Amino acid sequence: MNNKTFNLDKEQLIKQSFALMDTHLQGTNYTQTQKLALTCRILFENGHDSGLAGQITARGEKPGTYLTQRLGIGFDEICASNLLLVNEDLEVLQGEGMANPANRFHSWLYRARPDVQCIIHTHAVHTAALSMLEVPLEISHMDNCVLYDDVAFLPKWPGIPVGNEEGEMISKAIGSKRALLLAHHGLLVAASSIEEGCILSIAFERAARMHLLAAAAGKIQPINSDLGREAHDWILRGQRNAVGFAYYARRSLRMNTDCLE
Amino acid sequence: MNNKTFNLDKEQLIKQSFALMDTHLQGTNYTQTQKLALTCRILFENGHDSGLAGQITARGEKPGTYLTQRLGIGFDEICASNLLLVNEDLEVLQGEGMANPANRFHSWLYRARPDVQCIIHTHAVHTAALSMLEVPLEISHMDNCVLYDDVAFLPKWPGIPVGNEEGEMISKAIGSKRALLLAHHGLLVAASSIEEGCILSIAFERAARMHLLAAAAGKIQPINSDLGREAHDWILRGQRNAVGFAYYARRSLRMNTDCLE
Amino acid sequence: MNNKTFNLDKEQLIKQSFALMDTHLQGTNYTQTQKLALTCRILFENGHDSGLAGQITARGEKPGTYLTQRLGIGFDEICASNLLLVNEDLEVLQGEGMANPANRFHSWLYRARPDVQCIIHTHAVHTAALSMLEVPLEISHMDNCVLYDDVAFLPKWPGIPVGNEEGEMISKAIGSKRALLLAHHGLLVAASSIEEGCILSIAFERAARMHLLAAAAGKIQPINSDLGREAHDWILRGQRNAVGFAYYARRSLRMNTDCLE
Amino acid sequence: MNNKTFNLDKEQLIKQSFALMDTHLQGTNYTQTQKLALTCRILFENGHDSGLAGQITARGEKPGTYLTQRLGIGFDEICASNLLLVNEDLEVLQGEGMANPANRFHSWLYRARPDVQCIIHTHAVHTAALSMLEVPLEISHMDNCVLYDDVAFLPKWPGIPVGNEEGEMISKAIGSKRALLLAHHGLLVAASSIEEGCILSIAFERAARMHLLAAAAGKIQPINSDLGREAHDWILRGQRNAVGFAYYARRSLRMNTDCLE
Repeated sequence: MNNKTFNLDKEQLIKQSFALMDTHLQGTNYTQTQKLALTCRILFENGHDSGLAGQITARGEKPGTYLTQRLGIGFDEICASNLLLVNEDLEVLQGEGMANPANRFHSWLYRARPDVQCIIHTHAVHTAALSMLEVPLEISHMDNCVLYDDVAFLPKWPGIPVGNEEGEMISKAIGSKRALLLAHHGLLVAASSIEEGCILSIAFERAARMHLLAAAAGKIQPINSDLGREAHDWILRGQRNAVGFAYYARRSLRMNTDCLE
Repeated sequence: MNNKTFNLDKEQLIKQSFALMDTHLQGTNYTQTQKLALTCRILFENGHDSGLAGQITARGEKPGTYLTQRLGIGFDEICASNLLLVNEDLEVLQGEGMANPANRFHSWLYRARPDVQCIIHTHAVHTAALSMLEVPLEISHMDNCVLYDDVAFLPKWPGIPVGNEEGEMISKAIGSKRALLLAHHGLLVAASSIEEGCILSIAFERAARMHLLAAAAGKIQPINSDLGREAHDWILRGQRNAVGFAYYARRSLRMNTDCLE
Repeated sequence: MNNKTFNLDKEQLIKQSFALMDTHLQGTNYTQTQKLALTCRILFENGHDSGLAGQITARGEKPGTYLTQRLGIGFDEICASNLLLVNEDLEVLQGEGMANPANRFHSWLYRARPDVQCIIHTHAVHTAALSMLEVPLEISHMDNCVLYDDVAFLPKWPGIPVGNEEGEMISKAIGSKRALLLAHHGLLVAASSIEEGCILSIAFERAARMHLLAAAAGKIQPINSDLGREAHDWILRGQRNAVGFAYYARRSLRMNTDCLE
Repeated sequence: MNNKTFNLDKEQLIKQSFALMDTHLQGTNYTQTQKLALTCRILFENGHDSGLAGQITARGEKPGTYLTQRLGIGFDEICASNLLLVNEDLEVLQGEGMANPANRFHSWLYRARPDVQCIIHTHAVHTAALSMLEVPLEISHMDNCVLYDDVAFLPKWPGIPVGNEEGEMISKAIGSKRALLLAHHGLLVAASSIEEGCILSIAFERAARMHLLAAAAGKIQPINSDLGREAHDWILRGQRNAVGFAYYARRSLRMNTDCLE
């Protein structure tokens, strides 16, 4: 091969790719509230639809405040204008209605993890079905490496999560990871941005679906852990999440635009 | 933690939550007939679509009368205006057409269970597939605890259900529970309100789908029975059903509004 | 129980039900061509969508003539006006285009089975997947009893079906039954009317889907064969098929009306 | 049987069929760019939707040039007007934005395989799930014979594909076949036309779905290899691909027409 890039090694090519991406790819200019509303719609459209279950929060501008959805409204009904601003006690500071009392553990987790800006918890159906097996999520596909070595596992179900005990237990279980599989329950994502939270939640449910599909048909083979971690770091970049989020947002807005209002 | 709710125990928090819900959450103001028509549409949209199979009834205002759907009309075609009022012999008191003769067992069940206001019977596909295995529905996920210890099992299929014998058999099989899995057949829900019937039927089919997905991929693990019962009572409250029903009704009405007429 | 029907036995109740159905339930008034076009759309909407695979024919008014779809047009594109009338050699008598050469075996089957008015052959995905296992379709659910003891099985795949040999082989394999599972291939329905063909094809694919779902999760249990046959005869009545077909037609026509033209 | 075609043997019938098809069936008149854009939409609508993963290229008019999609745009957003023309180094010659750096291996493959006009690589979900098992795709259904003996298998996952090493590895792995299953990754199709690439990609994902469905429920049985190859050659003809592509294009354009612009 005699073209100019055909003799570059992998590291040089990756460097070149990143430079090009910096020039050509962009995220969105939505407000935090709009991003959170869009995330609800995007998650709904990607299988995170279990009635009124599911919670989402993002840090507000003032410390100890959180944007979250109103209890009794589905992810497919969330708009920027019906999101709430609450404090750590889940008291409503802005907006009408009440927060989901099961959000309590979010306050604990935000305290324990200053790096976390957005928490998403859903009972998406494949994740929920997998959680009945009390086994960890198997990450055995390149796309799912966005979660490689980044999903903790809580193998015991402590019952309905309303108490402060759950806050402690969940904060401890997720540790410093970005995601958690809760047995007999669902998924938790603790992300450094709303965009990352959205992308990781989609990936989690897709990985759970693939786990179920593959395990029903044969034996899932592990991937090499060094390659898994390398892929994790390559895929889980802020810019990539922003570009992916922008894509899902456009797709969602082709169907409904009212969520921005 | 130093905020005002961080030292409350679980019981205090649940009490506080219930008080907030009483203030903030509301059900719907639809008539019984509208609720029944909405339930048909909601069930159809949630996988309870097996041609013309499926029956739904609710007690009428006068004892021994029942609202039910006209035979030959699918759940997706039900409107308030095409529902029938029938007596225990399935004779039509109001409306045009005839009731499903297979509804006969409803009359038996309403007599046996004065607490029951609404009976739903469908052949939703995952429930129907599961019923071919002659195994009970496994409730192993928090959401499905709405049915924990509340699903009876009829392991033998008695053939097509038209006779009075089936009325006796089914009434005996369900006993005092809210639901029944009929082997080689489908699901039955006997609920204290239309809203509860709607929510439980959605939950039943979702639980059956999760049972199939999980069992195909591994071994379903049981949940702790005390926690399961606690979750059952927490989730299965009238207000929660009313709020959940209101959500599903709004979702359905975004697609079609003719069912209210 | 003291109401007037509560002491009737099953036979009396069935007789009464049939009388009521004769009065209250009706089929459709579509022409044969419109019924065939509607069936194509209905089948497409119920999972019989495998690109350009799939064939459908019905006897024409003159002996040795058949209505069939034009090759190169999908089931979702069929209208009354683009159907063809062909003879036993598949020569076009009315309409534009050509018939599917793989229809050849239909001519053989119509000759062997004077009772057959409509033949449907599709590669619906669950039937096709099941056919890879070289096992018969298991009828273990009441709804599927419409096919109880009425599905033959061709366990060997003879290659692409164009020759006259296939005509003989398939006619022999189906014998006097209404349906046939062709290993590594698909389903065949030979019905006494277009309505029956439509209903049986939907039931076949649904039964295959249920077979796959159930077998992946456990062991399918057989049903009692006397009850299976009784259910078969109860469900597979001309009037019931006509009413079921009318329902599916209304559902399809809510989406598209052009297929009647 | 006494009609004129009932005594013809299989070879004569096939010859007659081909002659009729030449007269009656037609492909499309779209430009290469429009065909590529249509293929993106068609693939999206047929389950090849994994966020921004997935790459597609076709040879440009000038040697060493390729049409490809812009990075950051989903398959459902591709239009003729937002496709790029790039050179072997992935530098953009026409259009705005950048190509996917992971396209690098395409350049290698086009050099190694002068017969290849179009390369498609996706992470469709059933293919991706199957790829976690490190087993080859089983072709055990007539429709899937379009890929019989034509799918190579790369059982080891080399990590994220950006380097030139992957170009060599993939070119070697696919050899002279039309398709490749990449373990822990996805599918690759190297086709002699855009139409063929589109049809084979749809068939690949459908075959993977059928593999998973069947393997979960039982043991997939092999088909006779002579018949498999015969079916392969019968189904995989240029005209058949063109007619099939035309059908999928019509279906797609009923939903959206903007992709032609």
